[in-house]
Amino acid sequence: MKRIALPLALLVLSGQAPAPPPAPKVLAPSEIVAAAPAADWVAIEASDLLVMDLAPDRDGNKRRVVIQLMPPPFSQGWVGNIRKLAAARFWDATSINRVQDNYVVQWGDANAEDKAKAKGLPPGLAKVSQSDYAIDFSKVRSWHTVSTVKSSQRSPRSYSPVDGKNDVSSDAYAWQTEIANGWPVGTDTETVWPVHCYGMVGVGRDMPPDTGTGAELYTVIGHAPRHLDRNIALVGRVIAGIEHLSSLPRGTGPLGFYEKPEQREGIVAVRLGNEVADLPRYQYLSTESASFARYAAARANRRDAFFIHPAGGADICNIPVPVRKVP
Amino acid sequence: MKRIALPLALLVLSGQAPAPPPAPKVLAPSEIVAAAPAADWVAIEASDLLVMDLAPDRDGNKRRVVIQLMPPPFSQGWVGNIRKLAAARFWDATSINRVQDNYVVQWGDANAEDKAKAKGLPPGLAKVSQSDYAIDFSKVRSWHTVSTVKSSQRSPRSYSPVDGKNDVSSDAYAWQTEIANGWPVGTDTETVWPVHCYGMVGVGRDMPPDTGTGAELYTVIGHAPRHLDRNIALVGRVIAGIEHLSSLPRGTGPLGFYEKPEQREGIVAVRLGNEVADLPRYQYLSTESASFARYAAARANRRDAFFIHPAGGADICNIPVPVRKVP
Repeated sequence: MKRIALPLALLVLSGQAPAPPPAPKVLAPSEIVAAAPAADWVAIEASDLLVMDLAPDRDGNKRRVVIQLMPPPFSQGWVGNIRKLAAARFWDATSINRVQDNYVVQWGDANAEDKAKAKGLPPGLAKVSQSDYAIDFSKVRSWHTVSTVKSSQRSPRSYSPVDGKNDVSSDAYAWQTEIANGWPVGTDTETVWPVHCYGMVGVGRDMPPDTGTGAELYTVIGHAPRHLDRNIALVGRVIAGIEHLSSLPRGTGPLGFYEKPEQREGIVAVRLGNEVADLPRYQYLSTESASFARYAAARANRRDAFFIHPAGGADICNIPVPVRKVP
Repeated sequence: MKRIALPLALLVLSGQAPAPPPAPKVLAPSEIVAAAPAADWVAIEASDLLVMDLAPDRDGNKRRVVIQLMPPPFSQGWVGNIRKLAAARFWDATSINRVQDNYVVQWGDANAEDKAKAKGLPPGLAKVSQSDYAIDFSKVRSWHTVSTVKSSQRSPRSYSPVDGKNDVSSDAYAWQTEIANGWPVGTDTETVWPVHCYGMVGVGRDMPPDTGTGAELYTVIGHAPRHLDRNIALVGRVIAGIEHLSSLPRGTGPLGFYEKPEQREGIVAVRLGNEVADLPRYQYLSTESASFARYAAARANRRDAFFIHPAGGADICNIPVPVRKVP
């Protein structure tokens, strides 16, 4: 009490109110990421990268797309196939065959349906079950925190019209969503699954029960098509060079397929990262770090100078996990 | 009772179960739209369109983008300015200056910040208040149904792990979302506002309290940046030709601005639709029609043959309002 009273008394004597301390500058999400300490960044192994080199563009510029493969426990049957396909040089001299606006870019063997022309798949590819689109919580106890949270303990959605905040960011497709071990996932009371955010890479397939081999891949280039969650396998995400895919001319055939073979963009080579000599090292911001928590909170409540109305929430695909080259 | 008993008795006598009636084919959302009767389509007035002709592409192909302006009660101060800017030919010989991947394409006078080179705005533009980013429910009573629903009557989010359905599609940014009078909106207990879905067109601005005039416009080309809702004015949506914007080369400067003037894409002319002789007539699927309700339900629960796991919900930006040329 005295410690407060004394300065007040002095103020009265001086007749002057002190200037309030300057408000700390509110950092934008990108500034929070830039300020994250080195310890908050996690190395991505080169062997967990898939490097796709397209033919040069019309001006002769190189085009390289780097994909981070999904870690266990998700989609490992397909990821194993993709490693075998890359080792077999399956995608060399294949092409990008489909570009559908606000949806996907898809690549692989354009002649896959034509037995006389198809490249043929390498031996030993796994046939993966539909049940592998999602993982039982019981199998991922050690993997991330939510696996230990019983459903009854999870927070219900709440909304306060007073401060305009959703305490839990609600989601139309999952009971809850979270970002853990570097990846965005959806959950219900029993299972957990990766979700179709911008840049995620999935496995093209035929009608169910086919689940695809991994030879035909796509990436999301529009609003998250979350209705595909648990209907198609997700195997990774583009971490560099997505502009070489998202800015391609849209195909004018059904589903955005290119109508003429010469419209397809050529793929020169696809390699695992450990086979590529000149590949930078990449790292992602640990989703378990304090920096990521601050970043996610700032994405959900923009209070930097441009904004006048913090949203009070963010959907999971609007909190992309930051990835950078090792500085 | 007798009407059921008799056939059963006959079955026992014949010793043979009848084949079950064939299940009706489940229509995909696009098939529901294609089957919608003519009465479910609403004409869009040519005077409510903004037609932007870009310079031809490198192969000499024409590039036209058609934008539907937002109807009352939303954003009418800015929409009025846009009509004046088009009438004054303000955008003729301006350019697309910014293409940021998974975010926006932005256009206007590249020299707007340079008084010596800036085109200068036509007289009579309104200065619009930040409060116009959202509309009080009291002002839109007649506009759409939700305005008559008291907050206590709205359904809370519910989730049944048995059937995997969210009864209300939950949203991270608004208390509720709906699609009414042809447009997607978010609501809280007091106000309603348009939301930043793919293809929506908004008004670039400086730091608040500036709200922009409408001379600088952008459209969304990635995952819905809903954190911009209620922070920037939305004035319309692209209904044709968005691929001419979304497939542009990404800018390599900060925020995706083109670094060299020659990288900018030229805008030849921007006109209101009623000034364009060769413009097709467009219509949208009435969001109050039975066809739209079926379409939205199908988007939320894909049961057509490709899908094995209906989502049980859809976020508002994943239910785009169908628009077509009048057949």
